[in-house]
Amino acid sequence: MTRPAQERAVRTREALLRAGAEVFDEYGYAGAGITRILERAGVTAGALYFHFKSKEGLALAIMGVQPQQIEPNLSSHGLQRLVDITFVWAYELQVNPILRAGVRLSVEQGSFGVQDPSSYLGWKEIMADCLQSADREGELLPEVHSEEIAEFVVGACTGVQLYSQLVSNRCDLPERTVRMWRMLLPGIARPEAIAGIRLDPRRGETA
Amino acid sequence: MTRPAQERAVRTREALLRAGAEVFDEYGYAGAGITRILERAGVTAGALYFHFKSKEGLALAIMGVQPQQIEPNLSSHGLQRLVDITFVWAYELQVNPILRAGVRLSVEQGSFGVQDPSSYLGWKEIMADCLQSADREGELLPEVHSEEIAEFVVGACTGVQLYSQLVSNRCDLPERTVRMWRMLLPGIARPEAIAGIRLDPRRGETA
Repeated sequence: MTRPAQERAVRTREALLRAGAEVFDEYGYAGAGITRILERAGVTAGALYFHFKSKEGLALAIMGVQPQQIEPNLSSHGLQRLVDITFVWAYELQVNPILRAGVRLSVEQGSFGVQDPSSYLGWKEIMADCLQSADREGELLPEVHSEEIAEFVVGACTGVQLYSQLVSNRCDLPERTVRMWRMLLPGIARPEAIAGIRLDPRRGETA
Repeated sequence: MTRPAQERAVRTREALLRAGAEVFDEYGYAGAGITRILERAGVTAGALYFHFKSKEGLALAIMGVQPQQIEPNLSSHGLQRLVDITFVWAYELQVNPILRAGVRLSVEQGSFGVQDPSSYLGWKEIMADCLQSADREGELLPEVHSEEIAEFVVGACTGVQLYSQLVSNRCDLPERTVRMWRMLLPGIARPEAIAGIRLDPRRGETA
């Protein structure tokens, strides 16, 4: 492809991701009509099939780009970075349709016949990286395992946001995230490290 | 109703709950045909509508009877009872279609247009009762709140089972439940209480 054609392809792909996310977030997978997605993206059916093959392919792509909605907004490292990921996530889940749709589709994937752990495994890798860095910096308790903590945090966050969505439409998710860390930090981090962690959910709004 | 008619009604209702659970567990909400449910239950459409009004009513009832699959199997109290609830739950989720369907329908409820926190609030009440009892017995740290812990455990268990389902078809759920408690107990309970807690997932199999 020529350079302008490549740029156009990137813009088309992003328009489809965004339009698809808005429609999946609002209507769920089954209720999301292809025509509505195409109209909102302002592209043709051919473009959808070129970039994503199918509605399911578009859904899987949206599930997979969740971390890209979070990571560019982070500047901390180690344990604080892990905490900040969850604060940015709790904030973005209220305003960012790509993240909202990604989380919804990941949770409801069984309803459209998908069993794909990729999006959760992607989060796990990112969180395990923070924890390995935290471990090198001496922040973690000696007997804990970065991978196990990361897997638990991914699962816990998934369930906590579902609970928060059902009881408050996710308004209380930032505060629930703080509470999660108050309960969880003593079991994974050294007291000196915990003392230095800033548990202010507004850290997620700096995006 | 006469006594035999009442007993027949109870049996019909239970047959519908069980057949509905098997079909919802296997096919999800959208894929669960009413005809299949009626055939498996061996009852008429009239019985379904008499007891549950609709397919959605049957799904909501199955979501609501989750705790009845767990509580009769418990004999411990306080913090150990809370831990044992999760062990029985982790075991039953592998073998009990009513619990499996209840959890699946609760997680995927958005896909069929329901936003009903009742099943999660039911679990929260049961867990908060255990924690209030634990608090009276001096097991909890002074600064923690039973309701907040209960809400977090409900959310965390929901997400951990989803993660476990996607990566191992829930085979590793009992072990993940043990890990959850190892991480969580230091943030909620006194060290003396933690020392007395038995973290053996086979406690869930005694049913």
